[in-house]
Amino acid sequence: MTDLIESLREGLPEEAVLTDPDVTAAYANDMASFCDAGAPAAVVLPRTVEQVQHVCRTATALRVPIVPQGARTGLSGAANASDGCIVLSLIKMDRILEINPVDRIAVVEPGVVNAALSRAVLEKGLYYPPDPSSWEQCTIGGNIGTASGGLCCVKYGVTAEYVLGLDIVLADGRLLSTGRRTAKGVAGYDLTRLFVGSEGSLGIVVRAVLALKPAPPEQLVLAAEFPSTAAACDAICRIMERGHVPSLLELMDRTSVRAVNALGDMGLPESTEALLMAAFDTPDPASDLAAVGELCTAAGATEVVPADDAAESDLLLQARRMTLTALEAVKGVTMIDDVCVPRSRLAEMIDGTAAIAEKYDLTIGVVAHAGDGNTHPTVCFDPADPDESRRARESFDEIMALGLELGGTITGEHGVGVLKREWLARELGPVGVELQQGIKQVFDPLGLLNPGKLF
Amino acid sequence: MTDLIESLREGLPEEAVLTDPDVTAAYANDMASFCDAGAPAAVVLPRTVEQVQHVCRTATALRVPIVPQGARTGLSGAANASDGCIVLSLIKMDRILEINPVDRIAVVEPGVVNAALSRAVLEKGLYYPPDPSSWEQCTIGGNIGTASGGLCCVKYGVTAEYVLGLDIVLADGRLLSTGRRTAKGVAGYDLTRLFVGSEGSLGIVVRAVLALKPAPPEQLVLAAEFPSTAAACDAICRIMERGHVPSLLELMDRTSVRAVNALGDMGLPESTEALLMAAFDTPDPASDLAAVGELCTAAGATEVVPADDAAESDLLLQARRMTLTALEAVKGVTMIDDVCVPRSRLAEMIDGTAAIAEKYDLTIGVVAHAGDGNTHPTVCFDPADPDESRRARESFDEIMALGLELGGTITGEHGVGVLKREWLARELGPVGVELQQGIKQVFDPLGLLNPGKLF
Repeated sequence: MTDLIESLREGLPEEAVLTDPDVTAAYANDMASFCDAGAPAAVVLPRTVEQVQHVCRTATALRVPIVPQGARTGLSGAANASDGCIVLSLIKMDRILEINPVDRIAVVEPGVVNAALSRAVLEKGLYYPPDPSSWEQCTIGGNIGTASGGLCCVKYGVTAEYVLGLDIVLADGRLLSTGRRTAKGVAGYDLTRLFVGSEGSLGIVVRAVLALKPAPPEQLVLAAEFPSTAAACDAICRIMERGHVPSLLELMDRTSVRAVNALGDMGLPESTEALLMAAFDTPDPASDLAAVGELCTAAGATEVVPADDAAESDLLLQARRMTLTALEAVKGVTMIDDVCVPRSRLAEMIDGTAAIAEKYDLTIGVVAHAGDGNTHPTVCFDPADPDESRRARESFDEIMALGLELGGTITGEHGVGVLKREWLARELGPVGVELQQGIKQVFDPLGLLNPGKLF
Repeated sequence: MTDLIESLREGLPEEAVLTDPDVTAAYANDMASFCDAGAPAAVVLPRTVEQVQHVCRTATALRVPIVPQGARTGLSGAANASDGCIVLSLIKMDRILEINPVDRIAVVEPGVVNAALSRAVLEKGLYYPPDPSSWEQCTIGGNIGTASGGLCCVKYGVTAEYVLGLDIVLADGRLLSTGRRTAKGVAGYDLTRLFVGSEGSLGIVVRAVLALKPAPPEQLVLAAEFPSTAAACDAICRIMERGHVPSLLELMDRTSVRAVNALGDMGLPESTEALLMAAFDTPDPASDLAAVGELCTAAGATEVVPADDAAESDLLLQARRMTLTALEAVKGVTMIDDVCVPRSRLAEMIDGTAAIAEKYDLTIGVVAHAGDGNTHPTVCFDPADPDESRRARESFDEIMALGLELGGTITGEHGVGVLKREWLARELGPVGVELQQGIKQVFDPLGLLNPGKLF
């Protein structure tokens, strides 16, 4: 232990190595429930690639595990410390190194906050789409590690689609460059993509080349109330089937709507069984909203409210943005699931979740990136009540089983971390697990990078 | 050898195992120049997953290499046979299993021809964008193996972006399912993407889940003539910098324009130094073309011709489509390079290629997917002339060196195969090569799948 701290200090400034347990304890967890975390031996906050290499070399020499961290806003425990580990926080490596409007790329360090990048590129008329709800806190490195999504994915896809190239420090301290800064490239196996979503288990991202889009026009939002989940999901199917490309297509179930009403005075109608929100950032969003509004009405919507301008659009989205906070307020704690199903199976997923809530006598609100079939069933429970906690955990698992049964995946955008390890094996099957572990072995033969995550 | 043929026949119908050397020789090559090919021991044409598994099990038991093939339209020798190998042709597995307009996916076997899929999905109002120039012959399996691109990539991206999930037969005959049929998913390392562009060296794709887009409106094309490469590339930079999203942005250099005029009577002006073609499939393509036309004029275009309708658009694109044939006619044989640079460096790439042509006293025409910075310098030579052949080969290498020097990659969409093996190592560096070979070892420990390709 003394050896470790001394060795770390040899290549890092005084203030970049934290060892006071009261301080390091603050770095033990991300935002997931039900995930154990250990006590780190040290937290390091490097500012350069060389310092990251020093940390990795030290860890390898002394066989100490490394847990890489961004802003710790993750929801699966992927950033949780293990006992005696080095927490490697990348938040001080927060420089935007380049924004190039002709090549439509940005080059960034991993600690750049998502919102900071989004604002910086917008100033140059560009758009970095991935927008997880933690975008004001979360870092690009964390987004890459967890392959995060957001509201925009239905049109713009997830983080993976924006990562062109990476600089990586391997467990033994060697530097690897993957990918490219060009629009296309197929030279060898796609290691860049392998790192996206790898939760820091293959190497430490120290620099990323990101693809950008031209900034689209501001989006206009429509809200539609439905008397049943089935009707709302029918509308979603019609919208997608007709070839519409909304920039956002979100669904709130009855429980979410009531939770939002209980928290703030949003005035959402209590009779709503499902609230659908659609947005377009096209050249003529009003006409797209009109067409989608008609499809909603045809599917049985009882009210359709299109916004006239950006301010009204923002107002309509507020209810959606408040949902997780509102559901947290129900019992104090929530456990947010992240099951993604083919969008044609969305109604079955949401109604099935309601049945699970009833079976376990729990409040489970569902918000969904409906256009992607990506649901976030949010289990509300009181952690002081052991029986309710047990039921919460069991319902959570049953929701994942339902997702798999419907041809879906256990995680659309939050990742596996500690929370869904056992479920990952179930989704991948034994051949898949064996090959994934083989890949882990190639990059990290000593198993020092984020041990106990994923597998 | 007798053992091998007998064993193969145990799990395959008579007509699915070809051994006549006159017949099997026809399967020895893809369309690359300068790439050696051996004589296969047998060509097998399975129709089912079980038959592919039987072939792989047999190959593993007898330690015989397997060379997977689609339509053999590749340009890097990735499908070339090695002596004594089993050529595993997937062209008989050509069923489209599902097209789902709500989930916007297609499920296909690997032997489906790209154009057949494109037409089938278009009938349902959907669009499968990847459009390599061999689209009437090439198969989806081959497209996945080589990660192919096409004209549409500047707006719609490459094959990799449309592959959601795969069924794979491993070298030992086991079946692996990767990915998903959902819009999003981050369960474990992205093995799906690892297979795209792996040139059959990790496993045999036997089924693919592909993402589809809604069919866009028909595109309108504009052609603009420039007095210099620099002016044309300046126009490209302005177009991209202003946030335009063309569905096609192609460039022909002077040599290509002259070759096309020599072949057919296209009436392209002989004074043209660079011909730019842009297209839009937006709701109002005429207004987009007008805006882009102004940018071309501002950059120095001497003539700007926007099409009024689809027929005129097609006419304008004919010259572009004829280019490779026209360049082939110059000397009988061509060697098509595939260097991709950041689009801001495109002018340097094209002018640099002209200088290389002069240095080696060769005709080298350049067509480029200009919006992607992806150039296809096409070296014309007479294979009966040993000195010219040598100069062709040397110029080809010098073009790749220039691409790397400009921050580019040795292959934007054609892949590595046999042709660019040495160059792959140069682009990846020793750490990259070591890790890529480690991955190969995990999937194919006996080294039976497409040996001698990539590395």
